Amino acid sequence: MDASTDTPAEVSSPPVAEEETPWLTAKEQQFWRAHLEVSHLLEYQLGRELQPHGLANNDYEILVVLSESPDRRMRMTDLATATLQSKSRLSHQITRMESAGLVLRQECPGDRRGLFAHLTEHGWDILRKVAPDHVRSVRHHFIDRFTPEQIDALYAALAPVAEHLRGLKGRS
Amino acid sequence: MDASTDTPAEVSSPPVAEEETPWLTAKEQQFWRAHLEVSHLLEYQLGRELQPHGLANNDYEILVVLSESPDRRMRMTDLATATLQSKSRLSHQITRMESAGLVLRQECPGDRRGLFAHLTEHGWDILRKVAPDHVRSVRHHFIDRFTPEQIDALYAALAPVAEHLRGLKGRS
Repeated sequence: MDASTDTPAEVSSPPVAEEETPWLTAKEQQFWRAHLEVSHLLEYQLGRELQPHGLANNDYEILVVLSESPDRRMRMTDLATATLQSKSRLSHQITRMESAGLVLRQECPGDRRGLFAHLTEHGWDILRKVAPDHVRSVRHHFIDRFTPEQIDALYAALAPVAEHLRGLKGRS
Repeated sequence: MDASTDTPAEVSSPPVAEEETPWLTAKEQQFWRAHLEVSHLLEYQLGRELQPHGLANNDYEILVVLSESPDRRMRMTDLATATLQSKSRLSHQITRMESAGLVLRQECPGDRRGLFAHLTEHGWDILRKVAPDHVRSVRHHFIDRFTPEQIDALYAALAPVAEHLRGLKGRS
């Protein structure tokens, strides 16, 4: 009998991992999907609630990063790294934000290592105006849905993972 | 004395929330940042590890969603909802995936409510081939970094949040 004609019954079942990498257990799978759902749906919801302010999630993130930088400015390449964007994608975004008067792209006198993005006074005002609504969204859809004990436990679990992932990114 | 000339010292400090929305406490802020970091850096890292397979995170997600749908196909509008993408952005992505032979866009005979995206045999083969590596990545960078007790606790905390966010999306 030719084994190759003996089509296995599970040919249409979900992909099966190689033996040395066990597939996720039911509990792990449940958790993994909950993590993905919360990450994606929360981002989606926060984005919807920023829209009336004329901002996208990426815009808000850039305003925050620049507001926390010395002199409220950052080298474009560092900003791309900080926001996990490609330089070309960031460049397009900064162009849009520059049109809206939120940031300004400028060469730094005496520094030949490229362009800086500056937060403008208008960008700073917008951030101050939008931040309370954003905090309200973050509290309502996320933070206030956990007990203080859960926040401690979640932070204790996530912090080493964040550190691991930061380390990988630093090496890349 | 004119109070308006009395510039508050904190004018350059971080944006302050309105009184009725308390700003995040130090612990909450720490947790919120850890959540954002893990979400974003994990997505970034998983994307990097899919790259050698010629797939982006969005591609992989679409392959999985289609593979789990009846007849391995889905109406384009439903696929956009399931993957939280705009119809136009999804359409561009499906065009790219169609060029790679992973999916096929087809009208359904007898159904005038638009186009379907089908998973091709090649798309299914690619998913089966890539899945073990992807599971290895998910385990190595995320799942295996928690104890079983932590997974239980994290799932118990996240599941109601996922349900809340799904409910909001359903109403939109």
